[in-house]
Amino acid sequence: MSEPPALEIARRCVATMWAADRASVAMGMRLVAVGVGRAEVAMVVTETMVNGWGRCHGGYLASLADTAFAAACNTYDEVTVAAGFDISFVVACVVGDELTARATERVRRGRTGIYDVRITRTDGDGGDEVVAEMRGRSHSLGQPILEGG
Amino acid sequence: MSEPPALEIARRCVATMWAADRASVAMGMRLVAVGVGRAEVAMVVTETMVNGWGRCHGGYLASLADTAFAAACNTYDEVTVAAGFDISFVVACVVGDELTARATERVRRGRTGIYDVRITRTDGDGGDEVVAEMRGRSHSLGQPILEGG
Amino acid sequence: MSEPPALEIARRCVATMWAADRASVAMGMRLVAVGVGRAEVAMVVTETMVNGWGRCHGGYLASLADTAFAAACNTYDEVTVAAGFDISFVVACVVGDELTARATERVRRGRTGIYDVRITRTDGDGGDEVVAEMRGRSHSLGQPILEGG
Amino acid sequence: MSEPPALEIARRCVATMWAADRASVAMGMRLVAVGVGRAEVAMVVTETMVNGWGRCHGGYLASLADTAFAAACNTYDEVTVAAGFDISFVVACVVGDELTARATERVRRGRTGIYDVRITRTDGDGGDEVVAEMRGRSHSLGQPILEGG
Repeated sequence: MSEPPALEIARRCVATMWAADRASVAMGMRLVAVGVGRAEVAMVVTETMVNGWGRCHGGYLASLADTAFAAACNTYDEVTVAAGFDISFVVACVVGDELTARATERVRRGRTGIYDVRITRTDGDGGDEVVAEMRGRSHSLGQPILEGG
Repeated sequence: MSEPPALEIARRCVATMWAADRASVAMGMRLVAVGVGRAEVAMVVTETMVNGWGRCHGGYLASLADTAFAAACNTYDEVTVAAGFDISFVVACVVGDELTARATERVRRGRTGIYDVRITRTDGDGGDEVVAEMRGRSHSLGQPILEGG
Repeated sequence: MSEPPALEIARRCVATMWAADRASVAMGMRLVAVGVGRAEVAMVVTETMVNGWGRCHGGYLASLADTAFAAACNTYDEVTVAAGFDISFVVACVVGDELTARATERVRRGRTGIYDVRITRTDGDGGDEVVAEMRGRSHSLGQPILEGG
Repeated sequence: MSEPPALEIARRCVATMWAADRASVAMGMRLVAVGVGRAEVAMVVTETMVNGWGRCHGGYLASLADTAFAAACNTYDEVTVAAGFDISFVVACVVGDELTARATERVRRGRTGIYDVRITRTDGDGGDEVVAEMRGRSHSLGQPILEGG
């Protein structure tokens, strides 16, 4: 009748984190899906996200990827933070672009992990185009996310 | 009587870019200083910048660093964009922290360049503490920023 | 009767590159497999690859990953070089470890591409353990690898 | 009459590490200078270091940078290993190039640190040209390098 426990824990952990994540909500992000070591987050590029060259500011792309990364690495009931990340920009984005960041786990060992996040945008034909590729390095603080009981 | 031409060009280029940079202004950033291949940008962490763990969202730190990087690499009258960057987080930031990002050029060759950006916060004793270290990879589009004349 | 042309081209390109790659051969690397945008290279850690702490020097792990990356991104009949890469070390390796680097393409657009390389070692039970994760950034020089005809 | 204790400790630590570093010695590296959080290592590109395009294999450049990084971060009498690094290649190197890697510390906090390594080659006019820029992420194991007494 029920979900696998690991998946249920993953969802409860990310729900807890998301409820307090004012930054991601303020940027208009939506949590689309969560799995064990995985997450998907969507965002639309708005007029206040544009840099001096009329493109979406790289910081907003990094923010979207970072949020998906945070969700993916916080699915094991351990408070986990970003130690750092690398992002490569593939194509420029503009106002109105509908972006999706999909984070997947590459490896997790001890208190550290590596997660890949691909940002795509929906193109006119219902397909997806890669916008940026981010790789995050996580560090667990060793504290539970969920309350006992 | 006048500034060195290279410095004057640098300032005019960044002023042009900054005037159109809605994203950086909307995040409350202030352009503090510009030099040839250098820039300094400041930002205060506000309540809407906080993630699910009560810390400043890494995306805002990345945004601050990215803006300083963009200013530094656009000081040569060539429209230059970020190809990507790597950021490492050193300490967590909280609401009210006064942050400064200082971007300096490491190398520039042909259409590519590498810039280092250190983010510090002012501590209680008037000193600076390193918050994050970012390294940006730039790519020039080969177009002038300033209008002729 | 024949291979798909793209795969045949991939193999001929990598064979051409490999025949001149004195460095990879001198380090004892073996080219195990090639596909379009993919490659697999193996190496055993020898006694002269050990650093001051008795571990395999990170430079040799980086070399192995870099060779697999080079093979993967040179499968399209365009001379392609590394613009740079990031590598994270997951576990330490010692003399005798049998390592395999598998490179896969994440995205390729214009003259640039991003490739992921995972290094694993065979553990005692016939399984694989992740040793390092590398991400390479490629740049095509726009010259053919194969001679016409 | 004597060196500052921190510098003396730095030199003894690196001498201890270097004496066991078979990999760096086998690649022909020379330890040129050591300071607290700093190191300089030199290497000449030989014929067995060349890749399939007649250039110095990126793995050897990474190895040189990694050795300088290892020396710089092991100057505090704590066994410290590389968690990872990012390297960007600026110009291609060929056989005979005389390379120098200079590692400097950007930040060190708790058990982690960030070090920048610039590789240069001597040009014909006695000047230096930047060949690659590497940034290393260090992790201390919390064990002393030097024996007590």
